[in-house]
Amino acid sequence: MAVKQEDRWRNRKGAGCLMKMAKKRAPILSWLPKYNSEKLLSDCIAGVTVGLTVIPQGLAYATLAGLEPQYGLYSAFIGAMVYVVFGSCKDITIGPTALMALMTNQYVKGRSVDFAVLLAFLSGCLQLLMACLRLGVLVDFISVPVTVGFTSATSVIIAASQLPSLLGLKLRSSGFLDTCTKVFWNIGQTRPWDAGMSISCIAVLLLLRKLKDIRLTSGGAKPTKRQEVLARIMWLVSTSRNAIVVIVCSVIAYKMETSGSGSPFRLTGPVRSGLPEFSLPPFSTQVGNRTLSFLEMCSELGSGIVLVPIIAVLGNVAIAKAFASGDNIDATQELFTLGLCNVFGSFASSMPVTGSFSRSAVNHASGVKTPMGGIYTGVLILSALSLLTPYFYFIPKASLAAVIICAVIFMIEYEVVKPMWKSSKKDLVPTFVTFLVCLVVGVEYGILVGVGINLMFLLYPSARPTIIVEKCVTDSGAEYLLVTPGNSLYFPAVDFIRQSVGRAARREGCSQLPVVIDCRFVLGADFTAAKGIAALINELNNRKQGLYFYNPRADVVAVLRGACGEDFQHVSTQEELTYLLYSNPDKSRQLLEVKNEESQPLTGLNSGLVRRSQSSHELNEVTSTLLNASVA
Amino acid sequence: MAVKQEDRWRNRKGAGCLMKMAKKRAPILSWLPKYNSEKLLSDCIAGVTVGLTVIPQGLAYATLAGLEPQYGLYSAFIGAMVYVVFGSCKDITIGPTALMALMTNQYVKGRSVDFAVLLAFLSGCLQLLMACLRLGVLVDFISVPVTVGFTSATSVIIAASQLPSLLGLKLRSSGFLDTCTKVFWNIGQTRPWDAGMSISCIAVLLLLRKLKDIRLTSGGAKPTKRQEVLARIMWLVSTSRNAIVVIVCSVIAYKMETSGSGSPFRLTGPVRSGLPEFSLPPFSTQVGNRTLSFLEMCSELGSGIVLVPIIAVLGNVAIAKAFASGDNIDATQELFTLGLCNVFGSFASSMPVTGSFSRSAVNHASGVKTPMGGIYTGVLILSALSLLTPYFYFIPKASLAAVIICAVIFMIEYEVVKPMWKSSKKDLVPTFVTFLVCLVVGVEYGILVGVGINLMFLLYPSARPTIIVEKCVTDSGAEYLLVTPGNSLYFPAVDFIRQSVGRAARREGCSQLPVVIDCRFVLGADFTAAKGIAALINELNNRKQGLYFYNPRADVVAVLRGACGEDFQHVSTQEELTYLLYSNPDKSRQLLEVKNEESQPLTGLNSGLVRRSQSSHELNEVTSTLLNASVA
Repeated sequence: MAVKQEDRWRNRKGAGCLMKMAKKRAPILSWLPKYNSEKLLSDCIAGVTVGLTVIPQGLAYATLAGLEPQYGLYSAFIGAMVYVVFGSCKDITIGPTALMALMTNQYVKGRSVDFAVLLAFLSGCLQLLMACLRLGVLVDFISVPVTVGFTSATSVIIAASQLPSLLGLKLRSSGFLDTCTKVFWNIGQTRPWDAGMSISCIAVLLLLRKLKDIRLTSGGAKPTKRQEVLARIMWLVSTSRNAIVVIVCSVIAYKMETSGSGSPFRLTGPVRSGLPEFSLPPFSTQVGNRTLSFLEMCSELGSGIVLVPIIAVLGNVAIAKAFASGDNIDATQELFTLGLCNVFGSFASSMPVTGSFSRSAVNHASGVKTPMGGIYTGVLILSALSLLTPYFYFIPKASLAAVIICAVIFMIEYEVVKPMWKSSKKDLVPTFVTFLVCLVVGVEYGILVGVGINLMFLLYPSARPTIIVEKCVTDSGAEYLLVTPGNSLYFPAVDFIRQSVGRAARREGCSQLPVVIDCRFVLGADFTAAKGIAALINELNNRKQGLYFYNPRADVVAVLRGACGEDFQHVSTQEELTYLLYSNPDKSRQLLEVKNEESQPLTGLNSGLVRRSQSSHELNEVTSTLLNASVA
Repeated sequence: MAVKQEDRWRNRKGAGCLMKMAKKRAPILSWLPKYNSEKLLSDCIAGVTVGLTVIPQGLAYATLAGLEPQYGLYSAFIGAMVYVVFGSCKDITIGPTALMALMTNQYVKGRSVDFAVLLAFLSGCLQLLMACLRLGVLVDFISVPVTVGFTSATSVIIAASQLPSLLGLKLRSSGFLDTCTKVFWNIGQTRPWDAGMSISCIAVLLLLRKLKDIRLTSGGAKPTKRQEVLARIMWLVSTSRNAIVVIVCSVIAYKMETSGSGSPFRLTGPVRSGLPEFSLPPFSTQVGNRTLSFLEMCSELGSGIVLVPIIAVLGNVAIAKAFASGDNIDATQELFTLGLCNVFGSFASSMPVTGSFSRSAVNHASGVKTPMGGIYTGVLILSALSLLTPYFYFIPKASLAAVIICAVIFMIEYEVVKPMWKSSKKDLVPTFVTFLVCLVVGVEYGILVGVGINLMFLLYPSARPTIIVEKCVTDSGAEYLLVTPGNSLYFPAVDFIRQSVGRAARREGCSQLPVVIDCRFVLGADFTAAKGIAALINELNNRKQGLYFYNPRADVVAVLRGACGEDFQHVSTQEELTYLLYSNPDKSRQLLEVKNEESQPLTGLNSGLVRRSQSSHELNEVTSTLLNASVA
């Protein structure tokens, strides 16, 4: 943290300090001055494509959350607008998502829309609070394996959720497995027109995706003017493929619908017109004849007030990490932005929002250049609400399903498994567990279980550290037991260390030797550990064995002395240790008796494990016999 | 773990292996052969006292859980009996508790008793599963501060819950704050007889408690025969004080009740007679006209199936740790026993049970010697159910409240604050947070929040390790940046390390130097870290700076090479490093240019922090200038 503080201090000195801070918190200040027409075109194409995706998604997700369809659109445009100013990752689009809709439904089920809006407001407040407390560090606890498992599973779930639209089936399903089962049993009812359109769309989209990779020149030849223009057009068509496909399909559907015989496709259908009312979120609501107060509403929402924003943040940052591809994510900034999106959103009757994986993928695939894309998305949604509603009627659901599927199938990260296998096989566990739990149980549980498993891997060495016990002799001939714990002295390890040292010290041939604990890997200690050490010192003193700490850090000494008092003894050099072992008359006598016995490995002990080669022992005049090595 | 496996191996060899295992899993085999009449008397007194406490508690807690009173007694006797055979801590008594009753109520509310019994069965199964998976290690993650906060808060809550009985008030309250408020507002309705009896009981109990500490002989004088007998009687009276007080009060109440004018005390009242039916737990139930299947019942119980057993285990082990006072708790054994208590209990219509803090305190205070006390408790409850019911009618509630209060007030551990302050002030945070959350929100949340804070303290160094950056020169004159991370390379730290190293390597005067990472504190690595290191190597290579690892462990090399491939370079000795820095023609040229400049601390950098004195640098022919030290 010192580095950060120092940076902050230097910032304060510098003239551009305020500007730097403002740029950090409102990234638009950094990229807007460099904005040009080329970026504008890319952003416009991407923004409109995302807009065309978010409209039917918003309608669907609002229904999923148990609200009227237009609330999905209300939720979509505020998030998109706010992210333009405060967002730090160009690909992310904030809005209603399947995950948030499902969680909102869980907590709001059967209640009025007021609860959903209040949930959005409270989620935003909690996210802003987390940003203020700089809890962005929490995001570092989402590892690559969990991100990979989560994104892959979400891709599969989203692709599966589009299957009914793809085949023109009308199914009410919840969750991945349910959707797959129902699609399987209803496959016979596939509508040929819808299926035909979606398969054509997917084929066209995949072809157009490859279009921009075609090289017009062979080898290192310089392209001609004409080739350059052609390449540029191909790039444009390729990146705007989603919008092109949707518009072409809509025109076909419109023509067939107005030709008299009616459209053979399932269409998006009518969208209710009009802008949402801008007002404070509802701090009280009417249920039947009773008015519920703010606190009563909160108690009805229960754990959702905490769970919804946290899952939103985890999901959002997992997406940000997936798209950042090597860049560092400013998690605090993402928290701050997401909080603002939710709070402002709740003023326009939004349900809780977060970064949408599928639309971010569409955004990325459409070649977005800056967060400005959100403006076009927002404008499109506002237009949709006020003006364009009749035209959106004709978008075939199959074409949108094709766009979404083509966006997400490339996010299934099967190719990371091989390097993971080569590098660290253990990391495959959180990957696959996250993936499976996301698919089978739910994405929120998947992330939580994945992070939990990762933390268990991380915490296990704290609970069961390596403890190496050696029988050593000082140059003056005094024998002692040298114990080297491979980790700091924190509470999960203390019982284990106490038992291990106690057992070693009781062993035949060692039961009269003083014990020296080498603190080379002990970087800290806490009260629980100190109490355990006090009990250990007491236990050893009762058997007339001394316990000395070799070279502990000053802060460790303070903690241990605070709990153990004067019983705690430590030395810094080999000379001090030699002196101490002899100066205690009791011990020196014992040592003189033991001294002449040949030091030998104890019977029945497994001495197969050796110390790491690096640690050429710092007690360098010591001949050491490896007694017992226990590696957790 | 190696030590444990080795122990197990040795056990298998030995003749008494099976016996040792049996003794570990059924501790009764250890202590029963040494059982004698003195222990029997102590256990009998304690068991009966606990029995007299558990009967009214059981009735009250069953009501609290929303069940009929007798279910509390059904829950109490199976736990007590099973613990005799399998329990490892003499003080713990298993049975219905306020916490379990509250949680049962939360998940069973408004449903039939079948749900409570099934919850007990499923909780037991999960606990047995955790025991089989040896998840007892989880218990090591409950530190002394959390235990202290939890026990103190539980003591206060239990004491407060007895206030209405103490004052003869009839209140319906939920939780600590509610009880306190209601007692405060209803203090005017205090019944003088009840208040008088409870105050007398408390006074007598406190006096009798001190009785056994009175020394009849002064100085070191040998006691006479008469003094010895007297001391023995005083000890007996002192330890059986709870039973004495309850019986005396009951006799007074009986006399007054039968004298015609009726008792002025609130009495325990009638208890329904008869033993519970022994049968399998209900795997289906009738709700209205519908039969719910096992799976439907499970889905109604929801998260309770996981939360109830985990909170039960956490509570139980926190109690075990509080009473073990220095001894090690075999958490797996406690899990196993608790699981058996719940599974067997569910055969006798028990609700979920766990170790009771108040009754364990009574048990301890009554001088229990072995888990055998449970037999007497169990017999007393069975008698109560079948025969003694009419007599328990006359136990004044005030006397039981006094017994409970006198048992728990000595468990409020205010005296631990001072050594904690002296040793590790940071540990006061989990203590007080646990205490307050337990009081204000609920004990289950208190434990969870406390453990969470403790884990955050534990994980923080993993996320923001110390990183020390030094500018060093080899004996042959080549300059390089030496970076020493103070922790292993795991996923939470990787972004931070990457940023820190990247920033240091970009600094003026360092931007052409190769970077050497000293792996002395790097005990492990994972895939996320390896990916981050790969990105860092890439970043540095793009600026023509090399990145070398000095003396990494073999497993770290394997993980990093798996993700970085041949870009990953490491050396084991100072000579290798010198050779490497010169063998690369690109770098050696740069180094020759830089070489003659005087190495100086960079401007604007805070160099106040110095390396720990111990680490006399192993690259020992190096003159090092401290550039920047960042300590988290």
